[in-house]
Formats: sequence, structure tokens, C-alpha cells
Amino acid sequence: MVNGVPRQKPAPLSTGLGRRSSAGPRRSKAAAEAILDAAEAVLMEAGYAGFTIEQVARRAGAGKPTIYRWWSGKPALLLEIYARQRLDLSGTDTGSLEGDLVALLRRLFRFWGATPAGQAFTAILVEAQHDPAALQALRAFLAERTYPLAEPFDRAARRGELASDFDLATTLDLVSGYVWARLLTRRLDDDDPALPAAARTIARGSLRS
Amino acid sequence: MVNGVPRQKPAPLSTGLGRRSSAGPRRSKAAAEAILDAAEAVLMEAGYAGFTIEQVARRAGAGKPTIYRWWSGKPALLLEIYARQRLDLSGTDTGSLEGDLVALLRRLFRFWGATPAGQAFTAILVEAQHDPAALQALRAFLAERTYPLAEPFDRAARRGELASDFDLATTLDLVSGYVWARLLTRRLDDDDPALPAAARTIARGSLRS
Repeated sequence: MVNGVPRQKPAPLSTGLGRRSSAGPRRSKAAAEAILDAAEAVLMEAGYAGFTIEQVARRAGAGKPTIYRWWSGKPALLLEIYARQRLDLSGTDTGSLEGDLVALLRRLFRFWGATPAGQAFTAILVEAQHDPAALQALRAFLAERTYPLAEPFDRAARRGELASDFDLATTLDLVSGYVWARLLTRRLDDDDPALPAAARTIARGSLRS
Repeated sequence: MVNGVPRQKPAPLSTGLGRRSSAGPRRSKAAAEAILDAAEAVLMEAGYAGFTIEQVARRAGAGKPTIYRWWSGKPALLLEIYARQRLDLSGTDTGSLEGDLVALLRRLFRFWGATPAGQAFTAILVEAQHDPAALQALRAFLAERTYPLAEPFDRAARRGELASDFDLATTLDLVSGYVWARLLTRRLDDDDPALPAAARTIARGSLRS
């Protein structure tokens, strides 16, 4: 599990074994990595709108059936791409909830802008609007996304700073909603003075007075 | 303007005049209303995923070219559908910022669930991910959405309750992000105890201590 996204496992090897002569031996870790690399490249170059299984197959030099044998569809592939990215949170423990939130928001916006994660997450949000499996995966992501968005609140709780009626799930919904709205409107400037203002409001709403 | 959505105007009448014999006289208010009614019905029955100009045309008994002559595409049609809905905010002035926010969130969730507005807004968010014009319209919506989400804060400001460093734009981003995330994950239960918790956090983050 990375960034709270449950890692999607390829379909069991027994599925479709022998359906094609190339299927067995090519279902190696290396082949899966090559497809994931190709999928990331397509996302970075063409964005969510140009991301199709056909483009990924062409780029990877693989057949579409191979991809569909390993992933149930675009959402599963996108979730695995998202899970592959590494959000580095080192240095975001600043000693205060507000400082931690500013650092986290900046790190997340840079991460979404600089890696395939931003396009992948955008695509997952879109797929969830017409694909029930993608919606279910997105909700599971929300239920499990205790990291990294929860870390600043965990630290504040350990310092005894949170209000007695602090509600972690609701607060994470607020923070997630904020960053999703910025992602969906392409406002990921990590120098935006709105980020400290948002962090201040959330922190003030969470801390004991 | 309704709910902060700039009302989309039909293309100027001079565009394409005379291209078809039926074009001039049929571009009446009644014909436009019939198309909008049909579009609403398609949205309510088929949801965002089944909403196509072709379905709208069939339902309205109109030609696709007629629709494209009046609206530039799906985003413009969706924005006009959204602008047609009426969010009734009567009775949401409770005397406190927290109470107003609870009332507003509940009213908005019911509105999104019970009218075509929820499906229309979902569709606008999705279209904005691959259509630059839709993204521009969405950003304009954000810049103009001073109503209704801002009303509780306007009232709190008049009562002198807001913190001296209160930032309206950022706070509206937080509230918008929260409701968008709930919409995109289909969690629009207006009795959810998370709504008062979210209102409490936002209010506490906004008020002077």
C-alpha cells in the first residue's frame, strides 16, 4: 500500500493461461513493469484525455488482450500507476499542525504536477463517475487514505493539541476535497499564498482553543 | 445568473442563419425550453454517463444540428441546465455561521440529489478534464460563485464575527472542495452526521477566537 491506495494485484496466473502462446512466459514482473512504464508515459504525454488501453498497448509493444488479462480495465491500471508513485514526505514534520499542513499541501501539489500521479488521480475521479468498480475503488481509497493526509493530525493528536470534538474522517474529507478541487481546476501552484491560508483555516478549525 | 453560474447565451442569431429552412423560425424560446427539458430528462434518467447530444435530440424531437447551433457543445448545455435549477435557501439564516453552514450543506445535498443539478455539475467537472472551454467555464463559475456558498460568511462578516485574517476565496475553495468530493463519491445523504462536523470545523476555522 502506497499513499493509501490499495495496490491492485494482477489477475491470478491461472486466468486465461494458455489462451495464447505468449501468455504464460510473458506474464513476468518485467513485462508488467514495461506496461506500467508505457502507461505512465502515455499519461504524462497525452494526459487523462488521451489515455487509452490501445495507446498503452502500442507504446508497450504489447497486445491489448495481455493488458486486459492483467488488469480489469483502465481504473485498475490507473490505480496501480498511482500506487507506484512515491510521495516523499521527509521534512514535513514542522512541529505545528499549520506548518505541517502547508508543507504537505505544497509537497502534494508538486507531486501531482511532476509525476503521473496527478493525471492518474484525475482519471480515477472521472472513471468513478461512470464505472461502479472505479467508484468502489475510490471509496476504498478514501476509507484507507490514512496516509499521508492524516499524518499532520496524528502528530497533533500525540502533542495533545486537537479539540475534544475533533473528527478525523470529516477533516480528511475537507482536506481531500480541497486538493481534489484544485487538481480538477488545474490550480497546483505550490507557491500559491492560498495554501497557507487553507492550512491556517483547517488548523484553527481542528485545534483546541 | 443563478447560483453563481453565468447563464450561457445561445449563439448570436446571425450565426448560420438560413443554413436550413427550419432554422430561423424554430429558434424560439419555446424550442430552446423543449430541448433543455429533454436534456434534463435524459440526465435524470441516464445520469451523466448516458448524457449525449444524440439522446437529447432524440428525446426533444429535434435535430442535432439545431442543438449545436444554439449551444457550443455538451458543457454549454450542461451549464444552462445547472443555471435553470433553483436552489431554495429560504430558512437557512439561522443566526450563527455554524448553523447556516449546516443548513446550506443539507439544502445543497438535497438539491443535487433531487434535481438534474447534481448530475449536471458532475458532468461539468468531468467535461472540464478534457475540454478547455469547460475548464474555463468551471473556473469562471468558481470566481463568480459568491452565491450561495458565500452567504453564511457574508452574514458572519456583517455580525463582526470573522477572524481578522479570514480569507473568503480560500474558505469557499474549502467548502466547494468538500461538497464536490461528496458529489463525486455519491455521498449526498443530508442526514449524515459528518455535515455538522464539517460545518463546525469550517466555522471554528473562520471565526475570531
